[in-house]
This record gives sequence, structure tokens and C-alpha cells, in this order.
Amino acid sequence: MIADPHTKYQAFQSIKLKNRQWPNNTISKPPMWMSTDLRDGNQALIDPMSIPTKLKFFKALVAIGFKQIEVGFPSASEVDFNFVRLLIEENHIPEDVTIEVLVQARFDLIEKTVESLRGAKQAILHMYNPLAPTFREIVYKTDKAGVKKIATQGTQWVKELMATAPEVNWTYQYSPEVFSSTELRFAKEVCDAVVEIWQPSADNKIIINLPATVEMNTPNTYADQIEWMHTHLKQRQHIVLSVHPHNDRGTAVAAAELALMAGADRVEGCLFGNGERTGNVDLVTLAMNLYTQGIHPELDFSNIDQVRKLVEEYNQLPVHPRHPYAGELVFTAFSGSHQDAIKKGLAVQQQDSLWKVPYLPIDPADLGRSYDAVVRVNSQSGKGGVSFLLDRAAGLQLPRKLQIEFSRTVQNVNDKTGKESQANAIVELFEQEYFNQTAPIEFISSQISTLADDQQSIDIQINYQGKKQTVNGIGNGPIDAAANALCKVTNQTVEVVDYHEHSIGSGSGVSAVCYIELKVAGCSASFGVAKDSNIMIAAVKALVGGVNRKVGG
Amino acid sequence: MIADPHTKYQAFQSIKLKNRQWPNNTISKPPMWMSTDLRDGNQALIDPMSIPTKLKFFKALVAIGFKQIEVGFPSASEVDFNFVRLLIEENHIPEDVTIEVLVQARFDLIEKTVESLRGAKQAILHMYNPLAPTFREIVYKTDKAGVKKIATQGTQWVKELMATAPEVNWTYQYSPEVFSSTELRFAKEVCDAVVEIWQPSADNKIIINLPATVEMNTPNTYADQIEWMHTHLKQRQHIVLSVHPHNDRGTAVAAAELALMAGADRVEGCLFGNGERTGNVDLVTLAMNLYTQGIHPELDFSNIDQVRKLVEEYNQLPVHPRHPYAGELVFTAFSGSHQDAIKKGLAVQQQDSLWKVPYLPIDPADLGRSYDAVVRVNSQSGKGGVSFLLDRAAGLQLPRKLQIEFSRTVQNVNDKTGKESQANAIVELFEQEYFNQTAPIEFISSQISTLADDQQSIDIQINYQGKKQTVNGIGNGPIDAAANALCKVTNQTVEVVDYHEHSIGSGSGVSAVCYIELKVAGCSASFGVAKDSNIMIAAVKALVGGVNRKVGG
Repeated sequence: MIADPHTKYQAFQSIKLKNRQWPNNTISKPPMWMSTDLRDGNQALIDPMSIPTKLKFFKALVAIGFKQIEVGFPSASEVDFNFVRLLIEENHIPEDVTIEVLVQARFDLIEKTVESLRGAKQAILHMYNPLAPTFREIVYKTDKAGVKKIATQGTQWVKELMATAPEVNWTYQYSPEVFSSTELRFAKEVCDAVVEIWQPSADNKIIINLPATVEMNTPNTYADQIEWMHTHLKQRQHIVLSVHPHNDRGTAVAAAELALMAGADRVEGCLFGNGERTGNVDLVTLAMNLYTQGIHPELDFSNIDQVRKLVEEYNQLPVHPRHPYAGELVFTAFSGSHQDAIKKGLAVQQQDSLWKVPYLPIDPADLGRSYDAVVRVNSQSGKGGVSFLLDRAAGLQLPRKLQIEFSRTVQNVNDKTGKESQANAIVELFEQEYFNQTAPIEFISSQISTLADDQQSIDIQINYQGKKQTVNGIGNGPIDAAANALCKVTNQTVEVVDYHEHSIGSGSGVSAVCYIELKVAGCSASFGVAKDSNIMIAAVKALVGGVNRKVGG
Repeated sequence: MIADPHTKYQAFQSIKLKNRQWPNNTISKPPMWMSTDLRDGNQALIDPMSIPTKLKFFKALVAIGFKQIEVGFPSASEVDFNFVRLLIEENHIPEDVTIEVLVQARFDLIEKTVESLRGAKQAILHMYNPLAPTFREIVYKTDKAGVKKIATQGTQWVKELMATAPEVNWTYQYSPEVFSSTELRFAKEVCDAVVEIWQPSADNKIIINLPATVEMNTPNTYADQIEWMHTHLKQRQHIVLSVHPHNDRGTAVAAAELALMAGADRVEGCLFGNGERTGNVDLVTLAMNLYTQGIHPELDFSNIDQVRKLVEEYNQLPVHPRHPYAGELVFTAFSGSHQDAIKKGLAVQQQDSLWKVPYLPIDPADLGRSYDAVVRVNSQSGKGGVSFLLDRAAGLQLPRKLQIEFSRTVQNVNDKTGKESQANAIVELFEQEYFNQTAPIEFISSQISTLADDQQSIDIQINYQGKKQTVNGIGNGPIDAAANALCKVTNQTVEVVDYHEHSIGSGSGVSAVCYIELKVAGCSASFGVAKDSNIMIAAVKALVGGVNRKVGG
């Protein structure tokens, strides 16, 4: 049984907020968005991104419409420093986009950070230091005055060092780190002191960012904290009030929304909620939540599948199949009554009239997606369902590139209904497309032998152009040898790109399935697949099948 | 650019709640939990569960501590009907557990549902009908009176038909479906009418369940709706007020928490948030959120990895690496400053004193997990990181069972630090464990030939017990033949369980890596792995390596 928590945890103190306003408010416009995918997101990856990947990600963020992008931590990472230089020196930053970088409150680090930004048209320098009790007591072994001094001294240094790069249009951002568990009055005291030194104006606002570095309680508590700061901070009119919610309790999206109702102007987060531990708030969900309330988010997710694929590639992390708006399964309905209601709703839905389809909070078409009833999951929603079914129904474990190739074939077929017949239909379709490729070259048998120099020699018996014949090929392995034999038959180059093979079944019924990706005559690569009790013959048959698919039957 | 939503979507009407109380409240005890994994969760799966899987899942839910479990929709599915019968007839339901089943408001369906529950000690019969405007207008083409009549007539039938099975201790649950977008006053009117017919008492409460069938707005709106119902429903003292939040806007956990603050007594959801589209509220996160506030959830997630693995297997859906509490990456810290703060916090944390470690909202040990700094991600957090690195650094794509086998080896080694050397260290460890298995049998070379009956004959040259020798084996494929040859060498059975092979590299540098899972002398299965430019030799070497790992070097 789970340990009794009473001795170890205590409830996070809720806020006694007088005249609480946020529950009466609604969000009426999008916040200022700041993507920290390249900083907070990146530092939480198993393998942080390379510079070329960061550049691709940066361009994707610009294309989505982000105007503020945190690009790194140049004083902590040479890669980040070089990436910032590359963005500036190769002119990758559009006129209306401002890059942001993070730094700790130390003179040498701020100096290096300003150095990294020289020549930028505009930049946000983002300094932070932790204020929370645990950090004061355990990490820094200092008191309130000590951490306040770090913040004010750091701000002073930022001011001095920024003056050495007057070509940059500077914005200063300060984060009282671990705001979520810092005493509110003390957080205000430090922020007020920072603002006092900085002397912001209506034309040059300071960004005060209040991170839920660790999410501590139900999201209404964060909203209470934000409303209290919103109503108590000095010079509020010269402050852009920013939030940075993490997702430890699974409520970061709610925390950001309630915080906007409570007075925040700006949200920092990542696409699909990447970031340390449970991640940062997901900006895609936040933006599309606004969209379904009739508010244009000023971010473009009209081709969300494309965005998802790119981000999955850059982060090397999946987006969950049930992730709001973007997950592979969120526009599917499996229950018959849901399907029926959706069908009726779609039938009466008029273009340009209010969206009222049951069970669908948003028109999938607005995200570049389509509604997939269960009968179409596998024909429409892509490789996930198809490969799942092939594995489940037939034990076939397709390599990724073949999943993509075959899902296109499935897309072109959309007859048949009903769950069981559907899985069967897909298996049949696969067999027809790959296993039954017996023309123009029909494989009969093959024999292999090892030559004195360890080369492999293969004889393949085939029916070709109406006659039975044997072709021989030699290579450093059986596949190489067989490819060479088939070159002779077709008079075209046969080049093996990739190869996968696995066993299927067990005991005496075991056989091997071989997947070979190949190029014939230098054309684009495609697959041949075959099954045989002998792994070598499976490979030769896969090769023959793949050649047949290319040279035409 | 994303389409302008103004013509198509409008803001969900917020609630004008007088004297709103919930923002002043905190949650002080766990709700009544109801798991609908086997019903709502199950019906949203690509392939719904089989009866044996449902039974395993049911037992896992009981072990976690659920006292109410929705087990199916017996009038809609024969599998579900048979599953309910099996639970009852084979006595799988503990004394303190109540099963629940869903039904629509039709006489024949209720009749069949009561039939399915005959002989149960206690049961919750859960009837629903949609009330929301879109459903009235589009799906049912009726008015308010029409859907109200469905609810009251259905309740009357439930009452009559339950009387035919007096051996069951019945509870009735009614859901005004799509409550989240139904006019509040009308939802109350229908619920009041149902309660009036049912005549609940203090000893026999009715469950009124208010589903956010589709999540419509920020979670405070749902809390307002619940508080309004809580304060306006007739006979509130005889009602268990239940919520069933879906996650379309990514805020189901928040919605459930705020609803509990607003007066709800009970929560329906699924483990890790499975369910239609974006899923139901995640009961694991809800329970552990209570735990970190010092409230025992009365559910046991003290071995959360085990629960995660089971649910992933049953649902055939992954839990995301950043899923709160359970994700593979949530107890890792990648940034140096985070690692440092956590290290200091762990050093001063006393057993049984208040948990105060920076960046960790919960002691991972309370979930049966451990804190994994970046240097330990790959040694501690299991197969995910390890196999990611092996693929990235060396192109090795380990079959799943080998990932598990090798991650245990990695766990036993915990030296070396630093990112690059770490990836290298893991590759080295893999090579040492699998590629360098050259004793007692050292593979030298092999030659293969095809016999007249299409059987394969293999000669393998080996060094064994100090002398070079050739062994021959015959089989229906090269692996089979080689396994037979190795049987002769070791005088033990060598049985191939599974086999995977893939190419690695490209062009002239291409080779094959072969993974063979095998049993020697009937012992538990383990792997042999080898690499060679010849697919066949890779397989033979993998087999020899696997045998060596078993018979000892």
C-alpha cells in the first residue's frame, strides 16, 4: 500500500484573496506568446538539438507566427552561443521577431550573454534568480536580503552591460524563479526593486515573468497569485506580466488560462508541452482553446499534422495519440452512437454558419485534418492504425518507411466496413501489394554456396519472359549476390537501401518476413516484402518482389 | 494562415454565479472514485479488449483500490454481456467492490442489462440520455419535453425491471448526457424529475453524474456549473454528485479538481486519461495530486511503473514520457542547475520530515521510482533512454525484449559521466555483452549449401576446447541448420524463439545486425547479437554468441 503521506507532505497554502475578480472574467484576446522550445524545451531533451536542428525549429516557429522566441542560454552552452551568433550573422531573424536568451545573475555570464547578442536589431535579455524558501535555505544558504541583492545587483549589471551594445533595441525580462512557492509579498518586494532600478516606461516596458517552476497546487491558486501580483506590483502600467507554467500536476493549460483571466499579458511555453520533467504549458492547446471560443490566436496551426511531425522529429519525443487537437486519435469516434451523432451533425452543418457538430469541439478541417470514424481510422488516420493492425492481425512489424509507403496504398482503398473484416482487408491488401508480386519475374527456388574467398554465390531459378532459367550472382552476402543476379535479369541496377527481417510465429510454424527497401535503375526507393521458413529465401523473394513492383507486372 | 474563426465559433457562455464559493475552498478528502477504463476507456480503443484482458484489467483495478468499476455496456456488446456474467458467475467481484454498467433509456436495453446483472451482490445501473440543444435539434429532432420524457420514462422502466432481480443490491445512476453544453436550468429540471421518480433516501442514494462529455470552456466554467447544480438540485442530501470530465481542452484534471471544490462527491475517469478522443480525466494524476497535498487518495500507486506497464499492455496505447508522475522522463533533471539543487535537497532531506526537495514535487520513492539525474537516465530510467541512445549512436534497433534484457545490464553498471562518453559507454557495454561473446565457442567461418530437398546444410568452423573443428547441421533454413550444428557441439538443445535482423549503414559500408532470442537446454530465453556484412553469417554468429552467453565463457 502506498505510504501514508501525512507526515511528509502538507497542503500548499491557499491564497486569501480579497475581492477576487478572475472567476468573473473571460479571455477576450490572445496573450503575447513566447516560445521557449529552443531553451527550456531543448534543455529537457535526452539529446539536446544540434545547431542545424535548432535553425529548422526556429524557422518553423517563425512560420507559425511567434514574435518572441527564446533561443538559448548562451553563457551556459557553446552550442547556444554559436546558434545565437549564426541567427544574427546570417540574418535569420525577421524584422518583427525578437529573440530572447536566458542568463543567471552573474557579471561574467551577463557579459558573455550581451556579447552573444551584439549586432541583433532587438533582443530580450532574460535574467532569473531563485527566491523561494527551499532555495534560500538549501541551495544558496542565504536569506531574503541575500537573494534580493542578487536580483538588484544583477539588474544593475544588465543595465551597464547593455549600454556597451547600443545597436541592440533591448528589452529586459526578470523572473523571480520558483515564483509559485515564493512568499507573495517577498516576490513583489524583489520585483518592485528590480523595476525601480530598471525604470521602465510606456515605450520600454519591462517583462516580469512569474514562473510556476514547479506546479504546486490546483490552478486557481496560481490564478490567485497572479491576480495578487497584478493588483499589487508597482508601476504595473509599465510591466508586461508574463506567466511560465509547468505541468507537474497536469494542469498547466488551466493554470495559464486562469492566469490570463487574472491579469497576465504573456505566456511562455512549448509546442505540445515539451520541457523539464512533465513539461511546460502546451502552447498549441492554449492557442486552439482560444480559437474554439471565436478568438483568433494569431498563431497558425492550420496544418497541425505537419507541425506535429516536425516537432516530433526535432525533439525526438512523441505527441500522444490523445493529445488535444494534434493526437492521432482525437478526431476519431469509435462508439456507434457517437459516429451516428457526428454523421448527422456534419450532414446539417452549413459552411460559414456556427459550428455545432456533436462531439467535435472544433472542425478538424481548421487544423488541416479530417474526421475519422472508426471504419476510416485505418484508411485515413495514417500509419499508426494500419501498422498496429498488421502487427496485431498478422504479426508483421513494418519498418517505419514501409509504414508510410503502405498507408498511402491503404488511403487509396476505401471500401469495406466493420472491425474484423477491416483488419483482414488490410492484411489482404498488404499481401496482394507485396507478397503476390510474381511478375514479370517469378521466383522458383535458389541455392547458395560459400566461395573460397568467403564471397557468396547464389543460383536463382526463375520464370521470366515465358521461360524457366537460372541466374547466378556473386556478392559479399546473399542479398548482395541476389541483387547482382537480378541486375543481370533486368539489365538495370538493383541497389539495396535498407533491410529488416524478423521471425513470425513460433515452434515448427516459424517463418521469417523480410522487408527490403531498394532502388531499381536509380529510381526512388520502395519496398519488397516476402515470407519464407528460410531467412535467406525470404530475402531473395523480397528482393524479387521489390524489383517486380518497380519494373511492372 | 488558419481560417478566421469569428464566423464559425463563439465563446461558450460563462455562468453568472451569485455568491460563488468554490474558489475559497480546498479539497480535504478523496472523492468516491469510479474507474470507467473497462467501459468508456475500452470503447475508445482501436481494438477493444478481449474478455481475458478485461479480467486482468479488472483485477488490477481492484488491487489499486477501486470500489466502483464500470465494466461495460452489456446491452450494446455481447463481449460486455459475457464479461459481466463471467465476473458474477466465477465470483471475481470482492465483497466491497460494486460493478457498474451503462445503458440507454430503452426498455429492451434495460431489460437485457438487468439480465446481465442477475445474481450480483450489488450493482450500479447507469442510464443516460442526451439533453443538450444540438442533440435535441440534430440527433433526436425533438424538444425539451421529448428528452425529459426519455429520462423519466427510462427511470420508471429501470425501477420496474430492477424489481425483477431483487437479489441484487441496486444503485441507480443517471447521467444527463452532454451536461457541459446543456442549459443549466433544464439539466436541473430533468435531474429533479428523475430523482422524484426514483425516491432516493439517506440509505439508498441516487448517483447524479454530470458529464463534460465534450469539454467546452475553461475549467472554472465547469466548476460554476457544478456549484450551481450542487446548490440548486432538489434532495441534494440524497444524491451522490458525480463528475465525468473529458479532456478536449487539455484541462480535465483541473476541471475535476475545481468541481470537487464546487461540491462534487465522486469522479469518473480512466487510468492515464484513456477514453474517447482526448480521453477522460486521468485518475492517476488526480489521486497523486491529492497525495502531494498530504491527503491519502485511497488508491495505491506505490508501484506506478508496474501499473503503467499493465495499462499500456491492456490498452495498447503508450503513456507519454512527460505524463505527470508516471512518464519515463518526469523524474529526470537535465539542466546542471536543477541537478545541483536536487542533489543538495536530497542530501538534507530527513526521513519522515516534510518533503522539501527542489524541483521534485513528490518523493519518487513513494511511487516506487527513483530520481534520475541526466547521467543516470540511461542507467536507471530503463529501456527508453538506452535504446534511444543505441539507435542514435550506433544504429542498433533492439527488439523490445532485448531492450528490457539489456537495460538490466546497464542498471548494474553505474560509473562514467558526461553525455558523449555516456552514449559511447553504453554502446561499448552493449558490444562487450553481445558482440564479444567468443568463448567457449569461437566462430571462425561458415559455408552454406542448399540440398536437393531444399533443406539447408551448413558447415561451421569453430575453435572449441582448444581445437579447431568443423561441425555440420541441416535444417529448413540457415538458422535452423546452425542451431542443429550447435546442439551437437554443446550436447544441449538450442531452440530459436525469435529473430530480428536489419541493415546498418549504407553503400559499401553496409552490414547486417542480427538479434536472436534463444533457449539453451530449455533455460529461460536470452539474446545473441552479431554484426556482419553477410546476413547469414551475422545470424550464425548471433546464434553462437547467444549460446556462449548461456553456457558460460
